[in-house]
Amino acid sequence: MHLIVVGGVAAGTKAAARARRVDRDMAITLYQDETEVSYTACGQPYYLSGVVPTREALIIRRAADFAAEGIDVRLRHRVTRLNTRERTVEVHDLEHDRINLAHYDRLILATGARAVVPPIAGNDLDGVVTLRTMAELDRFRSALDRLQPRNALIVGSGYIALEAAESLHALGLTVTLAGRNRQIFSRLDADMSQLIHDYLVSRDVRIVVGEGVAGIAGEAGRVAAVLTTGGRRLSADLVVLALGARPNVELAEQGGIRLGPTGAIAVDARMETSVAGVFAAGDCVESRHRLTQAPVWGPLGDIANLQGRVAGENAAGGDARFPGVFGTAIFRTFDLNVGLTGLTEAAARAAGFEPVATLITARDKARYYPGAQPVHLKLVAEAGGGRLLGAQAVGPGAVDKMIDIAATALLGNLSCRDLENADLAYAPPFSPVLSPVIVAASALSKKLG
Amino acid sequence: MHLIVVGGVAAGTKAAARARRVDRDMAITLYQDETEVSYTACGQPYYLSGVVPTREALIIRRAADFAAEGIDVRLRHRVTRLNTRERTVEVHDLEHDRINLAHYDRLILATGARAVVPPIAGNDLDGVVTLRTMAELDRFRSALDRLQPRNALIVGSGYIALEAAESLHALGLTVTLAGRNRQIFSRLDADMSQLIHDYLVSRDVRIVVGEGVAGIAGEAGRVAAVLTTGGRRLSADLVVLALGARPNVELAEQGGIRLGPTGAIAVDARMETSVAGVFAAGDCVESRHRLTQAPVWGPLGDIANLQGRVAGENAAGGDARFPGVFGTAIFRTFDLNVGLTGLTEAAARAAGFEPVATLITARDKARYYPGAQPVHLKLVAEAGGGRLLGAQAVGPGAVDKMIDIAATALLGNLSCRDLENADLAYAPPFSPVLSPVIVAASALSKKLG
Repeated sequence: MHLIVVGGVAAGTKAAARARRVDRDMAITLYQDETEVSYTACGQPYYLSGVVPTREALIIRRAADFAAEGIDVRLRHRVTRLNTRERTVEVHDLEHDRINLAHYDRLILATGARAVVPPIAGNDLDGVVTLRTMAELDRFRSALDRLQPRNALIVGSGYIALEAAESLHALGLTVTLAGRNRQIFSRLDADMSQLIHDYLVSRDVRIVVGEGVAGIAGEAGRVAAVLTTGGRRLSADLVVLALGARPNVELAEQGGIRLGPTGAIAVDARMETSVAGVFAAGDCVESRHRLTQAPVWGPLGDIANLQGRVAGENAAGGDARFPGVFGTAIFRTFDLNVGLTGLTEAAARAAGFEPVATLITARDKARYYPGAQPVHLKLVAEAGGGRLLGAQAVGPGAVDKMIDIAATALLGNLSCRDLENADLAYAPPFSPVLSPVIVAASALSKKLG
Repeated sequence: MHLIVVGGVAAGTKAAARARRVDRDMAITLYQDETEVSYTACGQPYYLSGVVPTREALIIRRAADFAAEGIDVRLRHRVTRLNTRERTVEVHDLEHDRINLAHYDRLILATGARAVVPPIAGNDLDGVVTLRTMAELDRFRSALDRLQPRNALIVGSGYIALEAAESLHALGLTVTLAGRNRQIFSRLDADMSQLIHDYLVSRDVRIVVGEGVAGIAGEAGRVAAVLTTGGRRLSADLVVLALGARPNVELAEQGGIRLGPTGAIAVDARMETSVAGVFAAGDCVESRHRLTQAPVWGPLGDIANLQGRVAGENAAGGDARFPGVFGTAIFRTFDLNVGLTGLTEAAARAAGFEPVATLITARDKARYYPGAQPVHLKLVAEAGGGRLLGAQAVGPGAVDKMIDIAATALLGNLSCRDLENADLAYAPPFSPVLSPVIVAASALSKKLG
């Protein structure tokens, strides 16, 4: 029995490790086209800023660690063809420029996603960078070191854009955020996203929204300015393209594996694709949203780990299920924490729910306790029964705790009336006497009548 | 319509405020036998240590604030008799030493609890202190200022004992904890409580357990030593009696109101006592444990607030319910956070469950992110279905978040299999890629088979 895993960042390595734990005997080969496996993309902004002092700290495990568990990790090996009838993959050994053919009994696709680079003039100029793989990180770092930029323009306003804004500001660069979307981090409702906008302005981040990027102008091969669709010329000596990512599905498509409506690989709850014996996990697959039942796609390290575990277990003959996602996400930009779980008010309405929402501002600890910080918390519930549909939180306070309480409440199908009397942990160093979640749930219950 | 509220710390003030919001017209009188209302007992240890710089910071609202809402707060008025047939209370105006009679239509008892002072010789020596009311806090503070003690002996090992240990250590005193119970904070399982024990020893706290206190010896009217039941003489110039509390139920008993098996006032889900129209809330009542259905008693500020809200709403003609408690608690001692929710392994077994437990140690943030701290997390689930029964967490890390996730999971009746794929908030500054709760739930699922 031979398991082949294609891709070795989060989902692929987790899947391989899990399969090994379930089946001590099967042969496991993992192909990774990069020079490293098992690194954290999520930690990259903190390496750029120096918060994480070494590049090595971003590498979780090495090929040798996997070898010790009997997992054969082949670095710089790119899988270029998939034949699901013959159960073979064609592998390009990039080091020796050789093509090999390998047979599998079970296959796990963990091909990930790649950063979007818009097809605009100047996108290949020196000083135009993206962030995702270690190679992209190295290019980013090298641009910082070589070009010594002073004015960064970040295209996009998603979480990578906002994390990069913090990192570059920490390095002393002036930062401009530019994007087509009028809302910063548009996954939030407009009222919550405005809080981030105002905060960034207070941190001297320049914001140019409502205009797309038409091109990038250079001087002597180096980036000099970004040209907007509105006709502006925004000068910059570093341009970060943070326009999101797209799933790497070429290999799956070529192997006749079905993609879902999001464009990512479709899988069932066992993380099995449309081809029996072929599993997929991580940023290349779509997930079921547990509130709307709709397929959704959003590349996230924790979900990749959870899915990798399920795919690995099942590829080794087990029977695990991945139940879907609530779309939980969190990030920090400067000292502002931003998180959400479930549906925003707008998303709930779009999905056919009748949402009722409340937005409160509360401190995350007893008012008199030093270091208490505000959190703006918005809860969304269903009219009538009051079932919680989602939570959004923004502020310097304990956003992560509020979101995790709400995410667990979604998992438990709780209503805001249930949450109103939740028995949460209170002591002055940790919480006000009534948690902001309780206060918001109570306000929402009243609104529901 | 006249509502009388007896007691004005957490539950009483919350009840009065809530009743006012529900009924703008009813007359509301609140009798409080102390000189202040609406203070936080939970913040007292932090005032002693200086973390909370002023005594005033502990006072949340004043009589004048309530007056502005049309709530007549009478300070230094002690209710000495209750006639539930006549619907009258006899009130002792301590200021003018006068007795008045007042009639009520609805009554809320929020008489609280009092610190246990064992009937041993020397319990009234100068330098023997307790912590609960503002008067006790003032005596404690005065003892520190006047006696300038150097060696504190804390009798007890509950959370007030452990918070006081931190406070006194911060003031430069050497601290000894003494108690009959062999376990520090015995609400935890022995394995978890041992972690606290070891930590306190590492912070130079001397621990003498397994012996009760037989008496307190003095010199010139001042405390000099504590004599243990084991025959030891532990010298001390400050003795903190932190032996827990007992509910103040004399007034209720005298009014013919039924007490429950815990010795606290029995109430229904509407917080109504055995006498129609008489409600009770806070530290003087017992609650239903939502896992065992058994009545339990444990004085806690957040529960007092929740119950006060329900009692106030119902006394004003509303129909709110308090669904009971999971026994959630948290405290900090030095840099160690300690929390629990639901049942410990021992408590689950005692309640007739067949518990399965796992104890993991994990960091609360990505390993490479600065400031990541360990948490020891124990989850207890029911054999078979795997329903979560409880969580205990100890460590310098984000214990509060772990406990709140678990408390919400209990509320949602979730199993460790549900939690294994929880969609929690991950980014390096907030969490490892898989939350310790997910890691523990996964380990527990495996154990359950």
